[in-house]
Amino acid sequence: MWRVAFFSLRPRSHLVWMDSVQKSAASVKKILCEAPVESVVQVSGTVVARPPGQENPKMPTGEIEIKVKTAELLNSCKKLPFEIKDFVKKTEALRLQYRYLDLRSFQMQRNLRLRSQMVMRMREYLCNLHGFIDIETPTLFKKTPGGAKEFLVPSREPGKFYSLPQSPQQFKQLLMIGGFDRYFQVARCYRDEGSRPDRQPEFTQIIDISNVFRNTEIGFLQDALSKPQGTVKAICVPGGAKYLKRKDIESIRKFAVDHFNQEVLPVFLKTSINWNSPVAELIMEEQRLEFIRLMQVQEDDVILLTAGEHQKACSLLGKLRLECADLLEKKGVVLRDPALFSFLWVVDFPLFLPKEDNPRELESAHHPFTAPHPSDIHLLYTEPEKVRSQHYDLVLNGSEIGGGSIRIHNAELQHYVLATLLKEDVKLLSHLLQALDYGAPPHGGIALGLDRLMCLVTGSPSIRDVIAFPKSFRGHDLMSSAPDCVPPEDLKPYHIQVSWPADSESEKNSLNLHQES
Amino acid sequence: MWRVAFFSLRPRSHLVWMDSVQKSAASVKKILCEAPVESVVQVSGTVVARPPGQENPKMPTGEIEIKVKTAELLNSCKKLPFEIKDFVKKTEALRLQYRYLDLRSFQMQRNLRLRSQMVMRMREYLCNLHGFIDIETPTLFKKTPGGAKEFLVPSREPGKFYSLPQSPQQFKQLLMIGGFDRYFQVARCYRDEGSRPDRQPEFTQIIDISNVFRNTEIGFLQDALSKPQGTVKAICVPGGAKYLKRKDIESIRKFAVDHFNQEVLPVFLKTSINWNSPVAELIMEEQRLEFIRLMQVQEDDVILLTAGEHQKACSLLGKLRLECADLLEKKGVVLRDPALFSFLWVVDFPLFLPKEDNPRELESAHHPFTAPHPSDIHLLYTEPEKVRSQHYDLVLNGSEIGGGSIRIHNAELQHYVLATLLKEDVKLLSHLLQALDYGAPPHGGIALGLDRLMCLVTGSPSIRDVIAFPKSFRGHDLMSSAPDCVPPEDLKPYHIQVSWPADSESEKNSLNLHQES
Repeated sequence: MWRVAFFSLRPRSHLVWMDSVQKSAASVKKILCEAPVESVVQVSGTVVARPPGQENPKMPTGEIEIKVKTAELLNSCKKLPFEIKDFVKKTEALRLQYRYLDLRSFQMQRNLRLRSQMVMRMREYLCNLHGFIDIETPTLFKKTPGGAKEFLVPSREPGKFYSLPQSPQQFKQLLMIGGFDRYFQVARCYRDEGSRPDRQPEFTQIIDISNVFRNTEIGFLQDALSKPQGTVKAICVPGGAKYLKRKDIESIRKFAVDHFNQEVLPVFLKTSINWNSPVAELIMEEQRLEFIRLMQVQEDDVILLTAGEHQKACSLLGKLRLECADLLEKKGVVLRDPALFSFLWVVDFPLFLPKEDNPRELESAHHPFTAPHPSDIHLLYTEPEKVRSQHYDLVLNGSEIGGGSIRIHNAELQHYVLATLLKEDVKLLSHLLQALDYGAPPHGGIALGLDRLMCLVTGSPSIRDVIAFPKSFRGHDLMSSAPDCVPPEDLKPYHIQVSWPADSESEKNSLNLHQES
Repeated sequence: MWRVAFFSLRPRSHLVWMDSVQKSAASVKKILCEAPVESVVQVSGTVVARPPGQENPKMPTGEIEIKVKTAELLNSCKKLPFEIKDFVKKTEALRLQYRYLDLRSFQMQRNLRLRSQMVMRMREYLCNLHGFIDIETPTLFKKTPGGAKEFLVPSREPGKFYSLPQSPQQFKQLLMIGGFDRYFQVARCYRDEGSRPDRQPEFTQIIDISNVFRNTEIGFLQDALSKPQGTVKAICVPGGAKYLKRKDIESIRKFAVDHFNQEVLPVFLKTSINWNSPVAELIMEEQRLEFIRLMQVQEDDVILLTAGEHQKACSLLGKLRLECADLLEKKGVVLRDPALFSFLWVVDFPLFLPKEDNPRELESAHHPFTAPHPSDIHLLYTEPEKVRSQHYDLVLNGSEIGGGSIRIHNAELQHYVLATLLKEDVKLLSHLLQALDYGAPPHGGIALGLDRLMCLVTGSPSIRDVIAFPKSFRGHDLMSSAPDCVPPEDLKPYHIQVSWPADSESEKNSLNLHQES
């Protein structure tokens, strides 16, 4: 006697063993034995308890089996491109191409079912417990200032386009002004954010040590400190010298230079707080002592110094911190508990940043609707670059999972920020400015990145593991091959034509082939 | 003593009267008395019971009032373009332009709050009670065969476009194949379906009476019956002659000719079943008797005859029926109970229809994925035009509120329908055909038109009354003026340019003006 596994009424969730195939009629036996793996079979029979000793407590249906009476092959399955088992490795491209097969895996079933349940709990909390109103806002809108990454949708009117907004940003505000005091929506977002495990280890501190090196003779520190926003930052890996060897530190240094075009100065401290650094002799005794005091350096610590423009130096140190954590964990040091959920609020962001290509002009650190910190409003008219914003980010295990802000509800202030400070064309936003003038209440909100949150909850390495039909890194649907060519006659109603780049003859040919076939 | 109404913490839902303004400090009095209507004011004070006799049982907060201690004007309101009162008539264009003000009306607040609650109850029913999984499917997809009304979204690859699918049709099927046996989604739909109250009255019957007029001498009936799909259909308005005068019937006739380019032959029946019709003398006695028998005509009935191609004649009669009902209701006849919810399933649709521009070829009556009726499958290979489909529509009070179908789960059958019967390019659907080959279970579903359902539930005349930010009939957002012009440099990354029609110089100028301003 042997068994064949097929799925019953509820595929995936209730696999049921079918027994007694050997005892069934020959026709039933033939159907069940000859059906390829993953075929769809309808059986009728009697549910019976499994023979004593053959129960499987690990299966939800492990106590029963079916004595099959009749069987019908509803759909036969072709030879699969890969086995549907979680431990079978397959490339991401293959998984995306055959997404409907990949979705049958235990992992994808669990992730998407959990996602549905989590969103449902969120809805119950917001709607049923707190009286929030779920309102759908349009996805065909108009291009907004700064919306460079918005998709365009040609309309049937010559030269006129809709855009697909990156978020319901303006509509949220208009709903507040429209008297819906508690609104929420599960809105779409297609930003492909890669799969870096952006978790922060817990063992380090960053402090500003620029003053220590004000009179340094070390070249790249000197360079950095001579610039207006220049700074020297350090990170301390306590006890790091016990695990990180010279070649580890060299790989960290290479990482910084390759990825950020920035130098790192590693300092090893061995017993008796001796310096061990390529530039040790360039550090003065006075600097050394001040440094040890500021960083609270202990024996066997490793210090990494980086210098440069303030934000870049901080950003690099953050990355180095994760690199060190990864290295130490590979060597068996227990640093991070993946089962732990550590939340962090980030506040007091600057409202504006100098424009990267023209640092004398300002751009919004987040978006132009964020309200300034109440105690900084006067600075808007004198030193706007010093104004803090009422923006807040929510971080979970080192990943930003949400952000939001209190918005400007005063039309005059909003106009000043847009026109005077940001030099934006206010005409494009006249509807919002007008709306603020008609009794807009003070308001604010937050948006959670559901994909990233689900990644953290399920421990998935990529957001593509928590989305049913994700696009590839290049924005392709590898299953249906979207985006795809469109014959010129389909473009006519939209009054557009393709401007072929000079070197794309091959692409044009492939379009023609496609049309003619 | 007098009162001023402002809203408190929960605008719209909890208007609270503020009392004792006269007794407040002069500064408070000044703020409250000078704030324009619909301004936002923050007050602190004491909640007290209203004086005996001054309670208002019609208000949720009618038993209390606030003794104001301090007041602050948070945002002043400009002069409104219209009063925010439900009984103040305003044009739809004005309502859409100032949508954020229109949303404050009692009606829009009630409609959108009810919509949110209804969707929540649906979710609870599907998710919590029946184990359905809520899965979001992409809105950036590829153009599908027959998807002529799909918006295009240019990508950054020359000549390649995404499309915005009209429904998650294919993804639903792929999820079934992917092992999600119970899926649902609240999906987007922007089809502007106008605001005709498409309700069916209950007092009429349509039957086919072509045979009665086989040998008629009436020109337009003769014409219709000489054509392959020609038919004569009649509708009986019982007792209609008591209310409908000649000029009413004339207006119905005009309606048919103007809107459908089709003739209508009205027949009045007075006492003793006398004919009263412009062509009475052309109807033979034999026809008359057979007609009266078939239609079960009574005294004072009005009969409307229409002739033409089968589907057009039926469609016109449906409209005439509604026109008559509207006319009779205007004259005080009680026909339809707006509080009643009458549901109806429509089944046994044909799977294919002859193409309008080439009747020898077939097109799908719904879409090419609908499964044929099991007992008609053999006809697919001999007389496909006779095959009934497994499509079903759900009708509420005469309006179609939903529809769905059992889908084809067999790849071979799907290929035959697409390639042989519909002459579609199967390459565009190769991913779906392939998916069906990998163990697709039999499956089907239904989609409800939430907008139309909400219209019926709230008794709203237009779907624009149950959508927060609707587009106008022409697809415009009158508030933000989307779609809008886009400067040519924004089109460059998408490798498209506008093909200006020859006569649109004025439009080009307006674009240029826009760019330069």
